[in-house]
Amino acid sequence: MQLAELSSYAIAELPKATPVVIPLAAMEQHGRHLPLATDSLLCAEVLRRAEERLADRVLVAPLQWLGNSDHHLEFCGTMSAGPRTYLDLLNDVLETFLTHGFRRLVLFNGHGGNDVPARQAIFETRQRHRRRSDLLLLLTTYWALGSKPQEIEPSLVQRQMGHACEWETSMMLRLRPDLVGDYQSLEPISQTMPLEPAAQGWITPDRSQVGHIGNPSAATAVKGEKLLSIFADDAVAMLERVMAWRAP
Amino acid sequence: MQLAELSSYAIAELPKATPVVIPLAAMEQHGRHLPLATDSLLCAEVLRRAEERLADRVLVAPLQWLGNSDHHLEFCGTMSAGPRTYLDLLNDVLETFLTHGFRRLVLFNGHGGNDVPARQAIFETRQRHRRRSDLLLLLTTYWALGSKPQEIEPSLVQRQMGHACEWETSMMLRLRPDLVGDYQSLEPISQTMPLEPAAQGWITPDRSQVGHIGNPSAATAVKGEKLLSIFADDAVAMLERVMAWRAP
Amino acid sequence: MQLAELSSYAIAELPKATPVVIPLAAMEQHGRHLPLATDSLLCAEVLRRAEERLADRVLVAPLQWLGNSDHHLEFCGTMSAGPRTYLDLLNDVLETFLTHGFRRLVLFNGHGGNDVPARQAIFETRQRHRRRSDLLLLLTTYWALGSKPQEIEPSLVQRQMGHACEWETSMMLRLRPDLVGDYQSLEPISQTMPLEPAAQGWITPDRSQVGHIGNPSAATAVKGEKLLSIFADDAVAMLERVMAWRAP
Amino acid sequence: MQLAELSSYAIAELPKATPVVIPLAAMEQHGRHLPLATDSLLCAEVLRRAEERLADRVLVAPLQWLGNSDHHLEFCGTMSAGPRTYLDLLNDVLETFLTHGFRRLVLFNGHGGNDVPARQAIFETRQRHRRRSDLLLLLTTYWALGSKPQEIEPSLVQRQMGHACEWETSMMLRLRPDLVGDYQSLEPISQTMPLEPAAQGWITPDRSQVGHIGNPSAATAVKGEKLLSIFADDAVAMLERVMAWRAP
Amino acid sequence: MQLAELSSYAIAELPKATPVVIPLAAMEQHGRHLPLATDSLLCAEVLRRAEERLADRVLVAPLQWLGNSDHHLEFCGTMSAGPRTYLDLLNDVLETFLTHGFRRLVLFNGHGGNDVPARQAIFETRQRHRRRSDLLLLLTTYWALGSKPQEIEPSLVQRQMGHACEWETSMMLRLRPDLVGDYQSLEPISQTMPLEPAAQGWITPDRSQVGHIGNPSAATAVKGEKLLSIFADDAVAMLERVMAWRAP
Amino acid sequence: MQLAELSSYAIAELPKATPVVIPLAAMEQHGRHLPLATDSLLCAEVLRRAEERLADRVLVAPLQWLGNSDHHLEFCGTMSAGPRTYLDLLNDVLETFLTHGFRRLVLFNGHGGNDVPARQAIFETRQRHRRRSDLLLLLTTYWALGSKPQEIEPSLVQRQMGHACEWETSMMLRLRPDLVGDYQSLEPISQTMPLEPAAQGWITPDRSQVGHIGNPSAATAVKGEKLLSIFADDAVAMLERVMAWRAP
Repeated sequence: MQLAELSSYAIAELPKATPVVIPLAAMEQHGRHLPLATDSLLCAEVLRRAEERLADRVLVAPLQWLGNSDHHLEFCGTMSAGPRTYLDLLNDVLETFLTHGFRRLVLFNGHGGNDVPARQAIFETRQRHRRRSDLLLLLTTYWALGSKPQEIEPSLVQRQMGHACEWETSMMLRLRPDLVGDYQSLEPISQTMPLEPAAQGWITPDRSQVGHIGNPSAATAVKGEKLLSIFADDAVAMLERVMAWRAP
Repeated sequence: MQLAELSSYAIAELPKATPVVIPLAAMEQHGRHLPLATDSLLCAEVLRRAEERLADRVLVAPLQWLGNSDHHLEFCGTMSAGPRTYLDLLNDVLETFLTHGFRRLVLFNGHGGNDVPARQAIFETRQRHRRRSDLLLLLTTYWALGSKPQEIEPSLVQRQMGHACEWETSMMLRLRPDLVGDYQSLEPISQTMPLEPAAQGWITPDRSQVGHIGNPSAATAVKGEKLLSIFADDAVAMLERVMAWRAP
Repeated sequence: MQLAELSSYAIAELPKATPVVIPLAAMEQHGRHLPLATDSLLCAEVLRRAEERLADRVLVAPLQWLGNSDHHLEFCGTMSAGPRTYLDLLNDVLETFLTHGFRRLVLFNGHGGNDVPARQAIFETRQRHRRRSDLLLLLTTYWALGSKPQEIEPSLVQRQMGHACEWETSMMLRLRPDLVGDYQSLEPISQTMPLEPAAQGWITPDRSQVGHIGNPSAATAVKGEKLLSIFADDAVAMLERVMAWRAP
Repeated sequence: MQLAELSSYAIAELPKATPVVIPLAAMEQHGRHLPLATDSLLCAEVLRRAEERLADRVLVAPLQWLGNSDHHLEFCGTMSAGPRTYLDLLNDVLETFLTHGFRRLVLFNGHGGNDVPARQAIFETRQRHRRRSDLLLLLTTYWALGSKPQEIEPSLVQRQMGHACEWETSMMLRLRPDLVGDYQSLEPISQTMPLEPAAQGWITPDRSQVGHIGNPSAATAVKGEKLLSIFADDAVAMLERVMAWRAP
Repeated sequence: MQLAELSSYAIAELPKATPVVIPLAAMEQHGRHLPLATDSLLCAEVLRRAEERLADRVLVAPLQWLGNSDHHLEFCGTMSAGPRTYLDLLNDVLETFLTHGFRRLVLFNGHGGNDVPARQAIFETRQRHRRRSDLLLLLTTYWALGSKPQEIEPSLVQRQMGHACEWETSMMLRLRPDLVGDYQSLEPISQTMPLEPAAQGWITPDRSQVGHIGNPSAATAVKGEKLLSIFADDAVAMLERVMAWRAP
Repeated sequence: MQLAELSSYAIAELPKATPVVIPLAAMEQHGRHLPLATDSLLCAEVLRRAEERLADRVLVAPLQWLGNSDHHLEFCGTMSAGPRTYLDLLNDVLETFLTHGFRRLVLFNGHGGNDVPARQAIFETRQRHRRRSDLLLLLTTYWALGSKPQEIEPSLVQRQMGHACEWETSMMLRLRPDLVGDYQSLEPISQTMPLEPAAQGWITPDRSQVGHIGNPSAATAVKGEKLLSIFADDAVAMLERVMAWRAP
């Protein structure tokens, strides 16, 4: 169900154990060849496919396309909530659903830069409501729900998600080819950072002058369909588990 | 132009005097008969019509559907950024466009509750960049751009915008009749507050138990088309003036 | 009653339905010819006249002369609370009166720059105390309480309040002529902003190099007396309505 | 000079080495017998006497009567800025005078509860402007400027300032006897706290049920004149030293 | 080198490319059998061993034992910085070393709950200093530097770090057996959370009533020595890489 | 008792009237001759001696070596929490012990720069818990607990504590002579500030180019032992009074 299309009265009648899915993405540079909305379009598509199969069993909030994207600000057009504003925004959104009585809240993320603040936000929210024992506050990033695409689809050259990369470009070729520019001439850019497995504070120019990270020239629409399909399956499986969860 | 569909490289090539239009709306209760997305759908439609006529002369950001809606939290499903979070969010968004070099930023608002914080945000932003003399930071609410609909269309029974009212219901009947519930049996609710012209801090239950404010039963799709048309004309005229503006 | 002159024990004995009037003004540049305290002196005078007629039926707090005046900081001497500090200050003051049990709180404002943050503050305060149904939280700006002075007194050349303008200079000529400098040689400066009715984020140098906005050279003490009289009448009428208000 | 009565243009012509005196006080309970404005009235009087002798050599801002008074909130009518708001307010006020180019800023305090936050504020402000070597940021509390009144006037029974005590009541008897209630029947209340010299976080009910701390029944107008005279002398001497100070 | 034991003048003479190691841990409940300082003692020991081999090539700050431990507050004695305070604290500490000119800052972490906020802090710090291209801002958690202990030491029953678990208890048996209580009678508690790989906002009682997570009864001092040795080797290797890093 | 070495279960069994001693110090420049940890080492030693005599009657938290030291940031290596972060940190630490049920909390301070923020923190904490009447929230600075060392030990040339001065250098000569550099050739630097008794916002370069304040060349280990002994006696006496305190 799309929260946006329901009246308040209809939502009030839903069982409060219904999972609320809160999609998060970004509006940020995606290299020379992809539009700013890439993360938002892909996250929405994965969730659209999942929702088709879950029907009225989950309540889907509108996708919050404004993300934690300050690291891309050197690239024109990138929109971003500052780091603390983004934390506050996530906390507030979680809080309003708790106010309404919902107990299973799933941040359904489609932008790497949102991962850390979203973990921080569910941590903070759990602490504020520490007397409750019936809450399930989750962060799921759609490409990190269990499946390893490169094992399923050996033609994939990347082993993990990058940025404006083989994976994202493939999915965009499948979903909105009209918005994809010349990706075939782009050079691959390393996905690893020099000090891994240490975590590093970075901005995009530390890693890529052009904007993408990974290998967009390896993209195909067929790979894109495969990826969308895998991620949608994973999303369905995860949301089924959320529904099956019972508070201890 | 839709920012969301452009690449960062395409945006970087735009003239920096291009107005950036940042649509703001809400995801909040709209009575028994309208969906939570009402403000967002209507604001988007007004702007869609305006943009058609302005073509490549304005850059339109995605609509920020999360608004300043705490006053509706008694009604299930309402999503809201807390008052200070909303101020921060608007400041951050304005700031990122200033970072990118744009100079004419228009908050294009479609939710009454956003009016005060958006004024506060453009004030705060102007102060932070007080050494600049080439900035135009605006807040426009689409139904307050000059035209008085009730003078143009005497069949309108309301003299001003309400909430889930004759005007909004009419426009929804024109735009998304599939999302409009029974509005004909709803009682009118006064649009005035008891201490006007004093401003009053309020929550919706102070004014309406059912959720709407105004007279939804007077709505028709024909009135809706008229309203959308008036508001789109006003938006075009305002944006033309923004383009014609010259810094003193 | 002046809160400042009462003991805590005397205030504790007042009926809690007594309106608390919290005067707000500013300490900011008023052009070449008027002192920084202009807004504070005029707001106090309007309220003094009103209070004389209301006697013990309202509790008047001391005037908070520190306002939201960052837009005047290019002009020497201007004192200002930063935008967020001013919001916090208003929230705290409202909160202390709620702590003491008073239920009808009136921000009585005499500075245009306070209007938006005061609206924000009463909104925020109402949200925090949303379980209450007996609160009346108001913002009134003394020249916007209903009367249109230029209709009552046709000799007025301005149609609305400006800054260090015909209206303010007239009232100062009536109240403190010793503090008024040469106003007769000052050029009129437009009161309208170029993009109205859009709201614009501004600093004073965007509108006036000299500091006043409007037409101070048209001022007379007779006009000033008329204005003070109109505004005091309006204030009395509004406060009578506050006393007559009954929670729904 | 009273900043409030000057125009911005007059202030702009002052030498920037002129000390700016920023009086701070409170609007808080003062027991059964004194009005809420006691601290503000007394601080203003001490400074009025000092200013008479310093003439145009110091610039005196209006007295900020809203203080850090949360510890008195159990007593009706007490107005207070919350602890962090008060810090922000002081920082903002100091900042605006630095913006205007003044270099010698004196917080002239008349409320014990302002002492710690004012020290914190001048510390914070000095850190923000650490590249400057010409700033003098001071906090002075008027009864702690050097003289020991009980050594000068042996009839004083208190050895230090209390609250609504012998000293404050005496000065009020001298200044505004019309605002002083029955003080002669009040019992003395210890001025010491049990764990001194350790500092203790306290609220007034920890120390006094009635509201005063010290011995108001020992007050006389003659003592009051003596105290005001001593404190005004001290203030003059301190401000002379501020004027004589030379940056290292 | 221990920063704590050096004078400011000695530190000023160090090459600014010297890595600064900032150890982070916690002071929080560790079940029935381990002291609150467990994370701090172990992190310090791993770093002590590493520092012995790195000698004067790294500058080691004192260990910040106050961590992000709100999730353990149900257990008496746990000390914690609130989530935002902890973020601020980390940002401030990073900022002071940047002020001093150091360019390679390593948060060396020994508490799982610090991982997310430390990632957030290095992200925020990198954004604030985005004009710099010579900064290396890292977070390393000592048990996640590359080696998989259970592959090296097959006698380990746990496959990853828990809390007051086989691994921590083993290291404490090696380091401070005098502080280890009865661990042999403790039941194992699952290390997995029900919705993995989704991240979940949790407090300790969601996972463990007794306080430990994992299998402390499998601990031995021999395993502890092996773990400390592995982690110290990893730390040395990582810090060597930090020294070898060259800005792009 | 050292909180760090106890298990949560052991702490849970302590009487809640047990005083919790929270040592605060700093990690900041101490001139040419003393290490950054000076304040932390000395505060810890005073408390170690006191604790030996108080045994299980007080619960001692680990020493927070990160202090309010921004005024020393011109000197390399100084670590500091920003002014507001430090306030938050102290509030959070006090809050966690209140959460655990302890009622007598003593900030045991060994750094002058912590004095004002610690007073602010206990004030803020007392206000938040104003319904309680059984709380004792104290700040004690170890050299300001009553004794006047220069009266007891006439060979002391300083009359009060400075910074890296006769007193601190003497104590370090007694405690860690290996960490003391050449102090005998250092010139004395005045301990008074020019505008005393007014409080002044300062940074170290306002007072000392080299870093110390006072007369380190007068230091001896014998004086150091005397000082440590006096301060430990004072600490014991104060903590005995804390234990003897009864809520009114």
